[in-house]
Amino acid sequence: MPRLPPDFTAEIRKIVGERYLREGEAISAIDHGIAAENLGAGLVVFPGTTKEVAAVVRCCLAGGVPLVPQGGRTGLVGGAISRPGDLVLSTARLDRIHISPAERVAVVDAGVTLQALQTAAAEHRLETGIDLPSRGSATIGGMASTNAGGIAAFRFGVMRHRILGLEVVLADGSIYSDLTRVVKNAAGYDLKHLFVGAEGTLGIITRLAVKLEPQPAATATALFGLPSVDAALATVRRGLDAEYGHLRAAEAIWRTYFRLTSGHHRWPAAGYETGHPVNLLVTLGGAEEAALQSELGRIYEDVAAAHPDASAVIALSGAQEADLWRLREDTDLIYRKYPNAPSYDVSVPLSEIAPYLDRCLAELKRVDAAIDPYVFGHLADGNLHIVLNMAGGDIAAEKAAALERAVYRGIVAMGGSFSAEHGIGTKRVEALSAVSDPVKMALMHGIKAALDAPALLNPGKVLRRGSS
Amino acid sequence: MPRLPPDFTAEIRKIVGERYLREGEAISAIDHGIAAENLGAGLVVFPGTTKEVAAVVRCCLAGGVPLVPQGGRTGLVGGAISRPGDLVLSTARLDRIHISPAERVAVVDAGVTLQALQTAAAEHRLETGIDLPSRGSATIGGMASTNAGGIAAFRFGVMRHRILGLEVVLADGSIYSDLTRVVKNAAGYDLKHLFVGAEGTLGIITRLAVKLEPQPAATATALFGLPSVDAALATVRRGLDAEYGHLRAAEAIWRTYFRLTSGHHRWPAAGYETGHPVNLLVTLGGAEEAALQSELGRIYEDVAAAHPDASAVIALSGAQEADLWRLREDTDLIYRKYPNAPSYDVSVPLSEIAPYLDRCLAELKRVDAAIDPYVFGHLADGNLHIVLNMAGGDIAAEKAAALERAVYRGIVAMGGSFSAEHGIGTKRVEALSAVSDPVKMALMHGIKAALDAPALLNPGKVLRRGSS
Repeated sequence: MPRLPPDFTAEIRKIVGERYLREGEAISAIDHGIAAENLGAGLVVFPGTTKEVAAVVRCCLAGGVPLVPQGGRTGLVGGAISRPGDLVLSTARLDRIHISPAERVAVVDAGVTLQALQTAAAEHRLETGIDLPSRGSATIGGMASTNAGGIAAFRFGVMRHRILGLEVVLADGSIYSDLTRVVKNAAGYDLKHLFVGAEGTLGIITRLAVKLEPQPAATATALFGLPSVDAALATVRRGLDAEYGHLRAAEAIWRTYFRLTSGHHRWPAAGYETGHPVNLLVTLGGAEEAALQSELGRIYEDVAAAHPDASAVIALSGAQEADLWRLREDTDLIYRKYPNAPSYDVSVPLSEIAPYLDRCLAELKRVDAAIDPYVFGHLADGNLHIVLNMAGGDIAAEKAAALERAVYRGIVAMGGSFSAEHGIGTKRVEALSAVSDPVKMALMHGIKAALDAPALLNPGKVLRRGSS
Repeated sequence: MPRLPPDFTAEIRKIVGERYLREGEAISAIDHGIAAENLGAGLVVFPGTTKEVAAVVRCCLAGGVPLVPQGGRTGLVGGAISRPGDLVLSTARLDRIHISPAERVAVVDAGVTLQALQTAAAEHRLETGIDLPSRGSATIGGMASTNAGGIAAFRFGVMRHRILGLEVVLADGSIYSDLTRVVKNAAGYDLKHLFVGAEGTLGIITRLAVKLEPQPAATATALFGLPSVDAALATVRRGLDAEYGHLRAAEAIWRTYFRLTSGHHRWPAAGYETGHPVNLLVTLGGAEEAALQSELGRIYEDVAAAHPDASAVIALSGAQEADLWRLREDTDLIYRKYPNAPSYDVSVPLSEIAPYLDRCLAELKRVDAAIDPYVFGHLADGNLHIVLNMAGGDIAAEKAAALERAVYRGIVAMGGSFSAEHGIGTKRVEALSAVSDPVKMALMHGIKAALDAPALLNPGKVLRRGSS
């Protein structure tokens, strides 16, 4: 078992004070988040300022101690896993929010949760332009580090597109301070984009300037039952061309998953077929709810003119709207039925979705004829979540590899992404190097070596440990 | 005078063929664009494919010949300047466009002009989300290399935010191919952002996947005369909260510049005061022109309720709309009056614009009491263009430095940018290192050394020649 250098914990304690270094028993009071291994290091520091973060980094550098930065610990791919001999750095105490309503910009510390920022922004009729189910725990720093996505990316971009400025502690303990609050900046290389999506392997994000958007006064939601992906894409385009209001969400639910959630929740009372190949949840935003509902009605008329077998239901209350969203978001139903079910998170160019799914599902069936996956996702940006109807955990390595090949095959060549919004972490390190162009991998290693030569920042994440 | 290695031109000619290497007299037929020095190298190659670009790069590497990539040669800061001993690489023959209307994505070669892409996109009721006066010459590759901005950045972001994928020839002649056509991609470091805005110093962009947006069926434009920047910012917010349609442009014209353009064009016939401190051009987009004009009327009512001295005029025809835009865009009037007038392009956080301008204008007057600059710009994103009422060209170095200090002072510290959308090129290399954090400069040099150790790609642009 790796040992920490003598006096290391004493040095760290000097930086942050007695209360803010936890080890041994005191660790058990900390929520480990998605995986117990996140706290495997058994040593967690809670710096209260950027300068303390920098001092901690310098101390790790002097002692050769690997450092694992953590936000809300909600990541799904093991990006926050730590092990004995590492030091975990929690951003929990970095929690200040400053909103400039006139600028529609928030400057926040890395440890602020998405929900805290959403609440603060809403006071000024502003919203973050990005939303995730884990909003209560996920931090803005973690979302930047993983380049988080969510349901509004087709409209407002992913986390990278929301960030105007960054402050980052670099691997040598220096501070890169670029808290720009404007969108136009052509003053040299825009280095913040190196740190966004790098999962803490190139620096530790401590503060961010984030663009906010005006919040609409009202929203309205409908569910459409459609005969094909093409019909669903045409419905998305009709939503984008809305005469009144604007499209805020376009979430697709394929038949198998729709039957699971609608069956479990005994939805609907009547009138909506559960057998449509694709169901599409559409939300509009705008000034008046009734006018938005009328627009949804006009969208249905246009869709039905082209596809007479289409169904639609428009939510007429907040409760009905929540019921519709639950059909999309209650993914726990899958994992209760199939613990640790293998799940994939891919982006597919919109015109390739239908042929991709046909091919992928056929290939999965060739691996195991019983496979009939649950498929759902963010249709307007091509992000599909594919969850298999089988328990995970003890799948043989060979079968697991065959399943991955079935899902990932051809995806980079067709202009998609094998990891759309969950990142690489530890779980997808091998897949990244299997599907990526060697030129890209060589560049990534070159960048890692240029920014973190001793490879102490979140080692083993994104790139193989010790390979740079 | 630097000499090319023996056989260098013969080698290049072998790659592209006789017709596509120009030197000597044949150079004079090429449009040098914004500055004659762009073609100072006297040697221009026109590769027809990415592979030819890669072969040219390898040939330059073998011979130690600096390579200057060029698109439309419309850059304002000398980013395309070449000198004897260099080879200019023109992307003019890289001109293919492929649009996928279902995806709202274009995959284009670097040499495609913005206008050509706009025309092709419009056939599918799509638009580029970015627009510039130099659209007829500016290329998509050049716009990516300079991270171009324009009037729609507050809504659709700058060029960086429009790019889904890139293909780049690297300094060693290898090809980085990442023609992703989706917005969500968390598959390792997102290296394309290194090349966007690097002005050709880290690689040569050869192909791009660009996000398109649905084009509205109608637009409507109004001009508001307002008592202050705060009143103008409140008008922008009211436009963002439009009940019908959406805000497409919010261009501010300060009094001195407004008097110049409105006086020259004898606008208006009657009724609109030319003495307002700030004039704001507002364009809405949406389904129906008449409904958009009504919305502009409601915006005026709200503005007038808060500011009874506000004026407004709503364009009721395409000709009237063009007249209003000319008041903003006829910047040639300045340069005809003051040839080579010193001009600056800064981004200022919205809440800082009023105090910044007060301070900046006072400081400019202390340098020269006769200065009364023309100020105009993209108010919704804080991008101000400041042009001095004095001829340029023979300003003493000391005075020029004092003018720069007056404009740039404090701008980085306040979260703005001293170079918003025009880039660094050769003209702002010294200013970049003067205003930037040394940590940023060190990182930039580290990245340049990692990606282009021999420093042959567009040397002397962004970073000092021979300083990396």
